[in-house]
Amino acid sequence: MEQSEQVAKAFVDHYYTTFDTNRAGLSNLYQENSMLSFEGQKFLGGQNIVGKLTSLPFEQCKHSITTIDCQLSGPNGTTLIVFVSGNLQLAGEQHPLKFSQMFYLLPTPQGSFYVQNDIFRLNYA
Amino acid sequence: MEQSEQVAKAFVDHYYTTFDTNRAGLSNLYQENSMLSFEGQKFLGGQNIVGKLTSLPFEQCKHSITTIDCQLSGPNGTTLIVFVSGNLQLAGEQHPLKFSQMFYLLPTPQGSFYVQNDIFRLNYA
Repeated sequence: MEQSEQVAKAFVDHYYTTFDTNRAGLSNLYQENSMLSFEGQKFLGGQNIVGKLTSLPFEQCKHSITTIDCQLSGPNGTTLIVFVSGNLQLAGEQHPLKFSQMFYLLPTPQGSFYVQNDIFRLNYA
Repeated sequence: MEQSEQVAKAFVDHYYTTFDTNRAGLSNLYQENSMLSFEGQKFLGGQNIVGKLTSLPFEQCKHSITTIDCQLSGPNGTTLIVFVSGNLQLAGEQHPLKFSQMFYLLPTPQGSFYVQNDIFRLNYA
């Protein structure tokens, strides 16, 4: 596996595990200039983004990942685009929801990444 | 509508109209450093990308767009991320295929955009 794919997989594992167990903990992954489009609604900045995610009208959920694609981008290939498809199971619902999501990840001075751009869509059948 | 949304919509209209009527014409939208991930297969450079797209095993198709999301990104917000969901109808097939696709668009000196990153996935039910 390429190194970028390893990074993408580690990010995806971390992101959705955090989402499913401690949604407020996602605030570490966003910064002030981060953007989220969630089902067409736009949010700017980590505080607004995590405010949206923590106020979604379900308490418990479980993401199952179907595909992960990643590409390097940006100056000198220092940024990472991650594209995910999967299923979202909400507590008490019989059928999971299909979703697609993309992340544009920028490097931090600490050698990690944060989410600059995040776009989420449910894929209705 | 924000200007970036107008640009995204114009790009999407142009891209899929070209795909459905003159697939080889997509070569104008890619450059040597462009990347495509198509159902998990990676292609680098406009020639390889358009080679893949023109060799797909169907002659006629029709994309119908369901959602378009866009966000500015990159240095000074000069780049554009476009995220699309829709249906792909192949000639002779009864049911359309659902797909998601994202484009990372970089500005050209001519004031237009080209596709730096392109990730395509079918959303199987």
